[in-house]
Amino acid sequence: MRYGVGVDLGGTSVKMGLFTSSGELLESWSIKTDRSDNGKNILRDIAKSVSVKLAMKGIDKKQVDGLGIGIPGAVRRGVVDKCVNIGWGYVDIVKELEPLCGIKVYAENDANTAALGEFKVGTGADYNGIIFLTLGTGVGGGIISDGRIIQGFSGYGGEVGHMIVNYDETERCNCGACGCLEQYTSSTGIRRLALKRLKESDEESTLREYGDDLTTKDIFHEAEENGDKIAGEAIDYAMKMLGRACGNMCHVVNPEAVIMGGGVTNAGDFLLEKAKKEFDKNVKYIAGDTKICLASLGEKAGIYGAFYLTKM
Amino acid sequence: MRYGVGVDLGGTSVKMGLFTSSGELLESWSIKTDRSDNGKNILRDIAKSVSVKLAMKGIDKKQVDGLGIGIPGAVRRGVVDKCVNIGWGYVDIVKELEPLCGIKVYAENDANTAALGEFKVGTGADYNGIIFLTLGTGVGGGIISDGRIIQGFSGYGGEVGHMIVNYDETERCNCGACGCLEQYTSSTGIRRLALKRLKESDEESTLREYGDDLTTKDIFHEAEENGDKIAGEAIDYAMKMLGRACGNMCHVVNPEAVIMGGGVTNAGDFLLEKAKKEFDKNVKYIAGDTKICLASLGEKAGIYGAFYLTKM
Repeated sequence: MRYGVGVDLGGTSVKMGLFTSSGELLESWSIKTDRSDNGKNILRDIAKSVSVKLAMKGIDKKQVDGLGIGIPGAVRRGVVDKCVNIGWGYVDIVKELEPLCGIKVYAENDANTAALGEFKVGTGADYNGIIFLTLGTGVGGGIISDGRIIQGFSGYGGEVGHMIVNYDETERCNCGACGCLEQYTSSTGIRRLALKRLKESDEESTLREYGDDLTTKDIFHEAEENGDKIAGEAIDYAMKMLGRACGNMCHVVNPEAVIMGGGVTNAGDFLLEKAKKEFDKNVKYIAGDTKICLASLGEKAGIYGAFYLTKM
Repeated sequence: MRYGVGVDLGGTSVKMGLFTSSGELLESWSIKTDRSDNGKNILRDIAKSVSVKLAMKGIDKKQVDGLGIGIPGAVRRGVVDKCVNIGWGYVDIVKELEPLCGIKVYAENDANTAALGEFKVGTGADYNGIIFLTLGTGVGGGIISDGRIIQGFSGYGGEVGHMIVNYDETERCNCGACGCLEQYTSSTGIRRLALKRLKESDEESTLREYGDDLTTKDIFHEAEENGDKIAGEAIDYAMKMLGRACGNMCHVVNPEAVIMGGGVTNAGDFLLEKAKKEFDKNVKYIAGDTKICLASLGEKAGIYGAFYLTKM
């Protein structure tokens, strides 16, 4: 029997999965991400945890074909330049992790890795090429075209959160530009839109009761349960911006499907209809119906994709 | 000695090149594109012309590794669905052309093919991944990422002419959407912008003397030679829209360079500075300096790229 390991390195925890070489997930577990000392213990902790797990299962490392790892930063040829979430500067992941764990290592950006997971075993398995978007605190993404990850020359392939979708925006995104997708379609973006509307209007809104504690979840709740107009408008606008971005992305790489994951999408697929409406308005030239749909692997997309990195 | 053939099929002529297998162009020639009867003679004409050329050179077809051909339509797996310029509907190019010419055939979209040419032997040879744009009557493009053409699921990869760059546009593009790159940055787009400005203002302009015969070339001429304000504004606006599109494209596929070819770029590289200014305003997140530069192969990009299709 042969095996593979998938690792999804995040800012708070490291999720790991042990797979058979045919892709069956045998066991998943996680450890805390130790961000102390600029995260210098992280790779050692991962190697140790994997080694312990394999020993417990009675699996010799020689039976393990590879370990894939998704990293929250731009990765190019196994190297990350900077990884703010976990305190890393330049780290040659492959070179450092391979001797620690004694298994061949494959490293990729985490959103690209999750995209690969969705492409291989999630919603994307039905499609020829996909763009995967994560709508969370920020907006990230990954692209699989003809079965391969588009990494880009500096590892920023699929990092579509900073595409400009609104050239009239006057507020700056964290990146320094104005009108980035992330300013609207992330959870912080939707909250920003709602707060702005609350400030600019005197309209009655159940959102006002939340004060500064208002969360994006509250906004979705008030829109759906209480039909709050300002909440609804913020969501509509966010999805309109998402539709714009999807349209332009599809003109660039012409995927068969755009697949959405991340916390914001927990609100449900009514979101996608709103985005698709704007998408259809903007995409007239490309032949073939591009699907816009929800991801299906949830938080496990990362470990599945990481496992499949070892098969590329 | 071994050889390869590159064919660039256009609406008025078919350009062809005979190459050594190492990519040296031995001879280039062209024939007229016979669009009569929905272009049914085109493939036969190409096969005949290639056969005659090889015979004249004393080259046996067994010495020819392959024939690559660029097609003015979306190509997927050697098949084109529709090719308006030359009257084709569905054509399985590989299946039809191979028996006619007795050489292995590789077919691709023409802009993707030209992109490959620029990537292999033109400006792109210095870069890891490129987006190639043709600014002509329309705007087309091709993307090479990690050495491979991004074809897309229905063959529309790199067809960036219909990305939306202006959400305030009220005039429709030929495609049916409003605000497409092609509405501004093509030669027809620049002319449209100038005519619109002339109509909307009473400002003195040397462009008015041209009347309906005004061409994009005239607009460039009057802007550069006579400092005509309206001509200059039309060009500036077109390049601003180009910069916007380049920014969004780079957030999707993160190429090392965006390379511009086509008739509009004959005006010179002062155009690129204008586009780069808007690009820099919009692209803050991607690390590494993305180059924006001119193509270098001119009309030969197509046959070079077509030859390299046989090497993919």
